Amino acid sequence: MNDRQHGSADEAAVRTVVESWMACVRRRDIAGILQNHSPDIVMFDVPPPFQSRGIEAYRKTWDPFFSWSRDPVAFDATEMSITAGADVAFVVAAMRCAAPGANGKPESLDFRLTVGLRKIDGRWSITHEHHSVPATD
Amino acid sequence: MNDRQHGSADEAAVRTVVESWMACVRRRDIAGILQNHSPDIVMFDVPPPFQSRGIEAYRKTWDPFFSWSRDPVAFDATEMSITAGADVAFVVAAMRCAAPGANGKPESLDFRLTVGLRKIDGRWSITHEHHSVPATD
Repeated sequence: MNDRQHGSADEAAVRTVVESWMACVRRRDIAGILQNHSPDIVMFDVPPPFQSRGIEAYRKTWDPFFSWSRDPVAFDATEMSITAGADVAFVVAAMRCAAPGANGKPESLDFRLTVGLRKIDGRWSITHEHHSVPATD
Repeated sequence: MNDRQHGSADEAAVRTVVESWMACVRRRDIAGILQNHSPDIVMFDVPPPFQSRGIEAYRKTWDPFFSWSRDPVAFDATEMSITAGADVAFVVAAMRCAAPGANGKPESLDFRLTVGLRKIDGRWSITHEHHSVPATD
């Protein structure tokens, strides 16, 4: 396998991990969401806190999301770009979900997403997520 | 050079690129800020817009920052973690700068930063930045 083929295989594997994670979010499958995540993940989420460190703190960040989301849960990439090396990768995406609006009803919310991954023992693992919206004030 | 040594050399090179970029911000050196950035950079900044694509749009994101910053400009990592492979890397940091407060005077602002890099022709280049604060509403 030459470098270009290797790159494509890694890019495809990273895409599978990230798209599978998004699909698990849409079906409220917490075990699936955590399946390819590192125990040491560092999460920067849209709502506070400033950061969440470790898989247990990461898991808890999904509780408010799932309590405000109505079915079917929206969590979709409208643009996605993958940069994959042999053992480190990152993914940059524009995302759309639904969040409570001023009247409490869900409204479409566009947010920015960056995901960082490492290949550990031949398997891609998510070690970092950064979700945000631009500051409004 | 074995893999571990190679990893350390790449981590050190990535650290140099990112710390040099932060130092250029502190001395308002726009040419230096752009020195190791890809023409195709995708920027997610703290203020709107949602995203800025390409080096010219990226350059413009610094105009409001420098007009509201007082000297000495604050732009410092309070925590930084580097994940570097042979040709792809990302950096996760907690940052501190100063932004206009409610009374117009600069106040300390903590923000989250993720930087994505690729090694192109043996040289590390920043292809992505994601700066944010948690949403407040």
